[in-house]
Amino acid sequence: MVRISLLGYGVVGTGLIELLEKNKDKLENIEVVSILVRNLEKHENKKFSEILTTDTEEFFSKETDIVVEVMGGINPAYEFVKRALSLGRNVVTANKDLIAEYGGKLIDIARRKDVNLKFEASVGGGIPLLKPLLESLEGNEIKSITGILNGTTNFILTKMSRENLCYSKALREAQKQGFAEANPESDVMGYDAARKLAILSTLAYKKKISWKDINTKGITELERQDFIYAKELGYQIKLIAVSKKVRNEVYASVEPALIDGDSLFSQINDEVNGVIFHGDAVGDVSFTGKGAGMLPTASAVYSDILDIIKGRGELPTKYEEEVIIKETTYDKSSLLIRMKTNDKRSAIKAVREKFNKAQLVGERKDEIAFYLEIESEVEIIKLLNTLIKEGKINSYTRLPKVS
Amino acid sequence: MVRISLLGYGVVGTGLIELLEKNKDKLENIEVVSILVRNLEKHENKKFSEILTTDTEEFFSKETDIVVEVMGGINPAYEFVKRALSLGRNVVTANKDLIAEYGGKLIDIARRKDVNLKFEASVGGGIPLLKPLLESLEGNEIKSITGILNGTTNFILTKMSRENLCYSKALREAQKQGFAEANPESDVMGYDAARKLAILSTLAYKKKISWKDINTKGITELERQDFIYAKELGYQIKLIAVSKKVRNEVYASVEPALIDGDSLFSQINDEVNGVIFHGDAVGDVSFTGKGAGMLPTASAVYSDILDIIKGRGELPTKYEEEVIIKETTYDKSSLLIRMKTNDKRSAIKAVREKFNKAQLVGERKDEIAFYLEIESEVEIIKLLNTLIKEGKINSYTRLPKVS
Ligand SMILES: NC(=O)c1ccc[n+]([C@@H]2O[C@H](COP(=O)([O-])OP(=O)(O)OC[C@H]3O[C@@H](n4cnc5c(N)ncnc54)[C@H](OP(=O)(O)O)[C@@H]3O)[C@@H](O)[C@H]2O)c1
Ligand SMILES: NC(=O)c1ccc[n+]([C@@H]2O[C@H](COP(=O)([O-])OP(=O)(O)OC[C@H]3O[C@@H](n4cnc5c(N)ncnc54)[C@H](OP(=O)(O)O)[C@@H]3O)[C@@H](O)[C@H]2O)c1
Repeated sequence: MVRISLLGYGVVGTGLIELLEKNKDKLENIEVVSILVRNLEKHENKKFSEILTTDTEEFFSKETDIVVEVMGGINPAYEFVKRALSLGRNVVTANKDLIAEYGGKLIDIARRKDVNLKFEASVGGGIPLLKPLLESLEGNEIKSITGILNGTTNFILTKMSRENLCYSKALREAQKQGFAEANPESDVMGYDAARKLAILSTLAYKKKISWKDINTKGITELERQDFIYAKELGYQIKLIAVSKKVRNEVYASVEPALIDGDSLFSQINDEVNGVIFHGDAVGDVSFTGKGAGMLPTASAVYSDILDIIKGRGELPTKYEEEVIIKETTYDKSSLLIRMKTNDKRSAIKAVREKFNKAQLVGERKDEIAFYLEIESEVEIIKLLNTLIKEGKINSYTRLPKVS
Repeated sequence: MVRISLLGYGVVGTGLIELLEKNKDKLENIEVVSILVRNLEKHENKKFSEILTTDTEEFFSKETDIVVEVMGGINPAYEFVKRALSLGRNVVTANKDLIAEYGGKLIDIARRKDVNLKFEASVGGGIPLLKPLLESLEGNEIKSITGILNGTTNFILTKMSRENLCYSKALREAQKQGFAEANPESDVMGYDAARKLAILSTLAYKKKISWKDINTKGITELERQDFIYAKELGYQIKLIAVSKKVRNEVYASVEPALIDGDSLFSQINDEVNGVIFHGDAVGDVSFTGKGAGMLPTASAVYSDILDIIKGRGELPTKYEEEVIIKETTYDKSSLLIRMKTNDKRSAIKAVREKFNKAQLVGERKDEIAFYLEIESEVEIIKLLNTLIKEGKINSYTRLPKVS
């Protein structure tokens, strides 16, 4: 008999109960013993309403083997998960905020208590990612991770591109269709993607990586004009999370970038997520699918639960060594640069003098746009800053091309 | 101490030894105890040449925990694997021919002997496929599998398409570059893809599926004209392995098909493989990567070995119920049909009468080509056969569009 209890009975919790019910015949001896919620009335007519509680002490007093944390947020989720682990209970969570922030500390407790802590659903929702990374690719040194890790922003960018919408219209559309929250900050500012990138990178490179150290730029400043230029160049714009390990250093960033029509990422639209791991033995392997949603996310939580029940799957490893994260710079980089200037003619001349392969993409009002190919991104930024110092341009925005 | 022995020391065996050496520090206590080959001289200067043998009895006399079968073929691989399992040794194999043909029997022995039999590398080479399917997607009922499962044919088709080559030229190019064998039959006739589809489908639908029952068409009859028409319609041509479970029936086929520019498969070129599983909870999840090659394949073999060592991963399950496989028919199908005729004008008229949405794609010599959209593929075939009976056309070839 395996006893399971749930912290939270919202979207993912409800999906999980549905999957447990559906697979009942395959699963002898699973019993759901307690579910903690805030508001009993919301759940009155649902399955298992008789074991719902709003009383934390009652919840923790029930003997249980696996606690599934699907309440979200840091507080009180962190306290609750700590308490569950300390009581010697296995924990499965879908909570990327919690794992990105306190994963290391929680793994410590789990290891001390000799229980498991699993969080497949925290990155990429239903897409199998952590298990393939940790188990299937174990013979590899992972060299890089590139991903579209946030469904909300991918949905908004797809809308902006296809329907030629401005950012705020596309955001409202996403909110209307349930793909963006009322307060979308953590998605649109890139924080959610940065958290997921930190979780993946920590597991892949086996070094402690803090999401706050990742240079993160969201999608809020993208304009329709960016999409017009990108299309002219044959590219799409996606929010790309990327990290690389070069010798002992880790480079990481989250920012909107240009995607070639030949890239797998160009086919990852709407709310779909996708990740490419580059392993030294296997080369590129990619994984795509729904990064969120009731049943897709529950599918990942379910597999974590089965891993614990069947004694299958990797135990959490603790990575002590903290690493300083550098901003990704693309070698052999191509960038779309939009520059503000008071004197377009002399700015264009100056850009052409400084950059060998400068392709003028367009000019309008007080702005010129160039597509630049250059040996290193560091070099480009140096030259652009020189242009500012020389008074040729006032400011610039950039969209790097992902190769 | 875990003792490993290898049946075969060719491409994959050499890759595996390289990975084991490279990961030595992470793996305390692994010892390679014996390697069976045919010809000692070929391996004289290689690592572990001192434990090579051509003597089967000597090989099996060495106490060992895991036997890695990377010799290929059915005979004597089948006898050797049976013997290893019967001796209570775990087996890891990369051999799709063996698993597609005798997987069920071997699993029987493994279960009886309470040892493991793993074969991740047999499908999709380095791409994590079987583990995600069996473990990560365990909460799902898998509804369909669609894949590009053979790198050789994908390489040839990519060549034919990009360089406008005929089949035999593209095949020679593939052979020159090491992507096709001297005797390419099992790849180009679609048998290799059918075997892999049978392995995936058996695991996914939990029913015994014989690869010989799968309606299989290779790429040998594709002509440059097919690619010209496909391009005009905005499609690519790929060898697609597809199976679906509808209630208790399984439909499966391997055949060249039209791929939309919007499809993920349109980005899977050269020797790369890709698979989409559709699960009832998770929806579509896809996996792509290198389907063959020394280190990619060894990466999968390595993860199977670690699964056994760490006591991780699913044990092989036995599926008794044999299922009759029906040829896949696409509902709401679109097909490119090329028809031979003695009288093009009357044939075109007849096709237009029979089919509502018939789009004439081209005509040349004794041939007309139509793109047809229709409610069911069965219907199309009935109508085409009527056209033959009426003497309007002599024969036809078809390329279904994968949706
Ligand atoms: N939804 C997705 O598609 C998705 C995808 C990937 C990961 N995740 C992660 O999964 C987790 C759950 O997401 P969700 O969408 O299921 O959230 P949700 O629908 O908002 O549900 C949250 C549940 O937790 C309960 N809860 C929240 N705070 C509580 C507290 N202080 N005390 C007791 N109960 C509390 C709520 O109770 P009431 O019902 O009484 O309000 C509700 O049942 C989050 O970490 C999220 O990031 C979600
Ligand atoms: N190569 C790939 O990329 C790839 C990808 C996926 C799966 N696989 C599968 O992996 C397996 C191995 O492929 P491979 O490319 O490594 O083959 P390979 O290079 O031809 O190597 C075969 C090895 O097995 C030995 N061998 C063959 N028959 C033998 C016999 N009767 N007795 C003793 N030793 C024998 C050979 O000995 P000698 O060296 O003395 O000739 C050789 O060392 C096959 O099942 C293949 O389908 C391969």
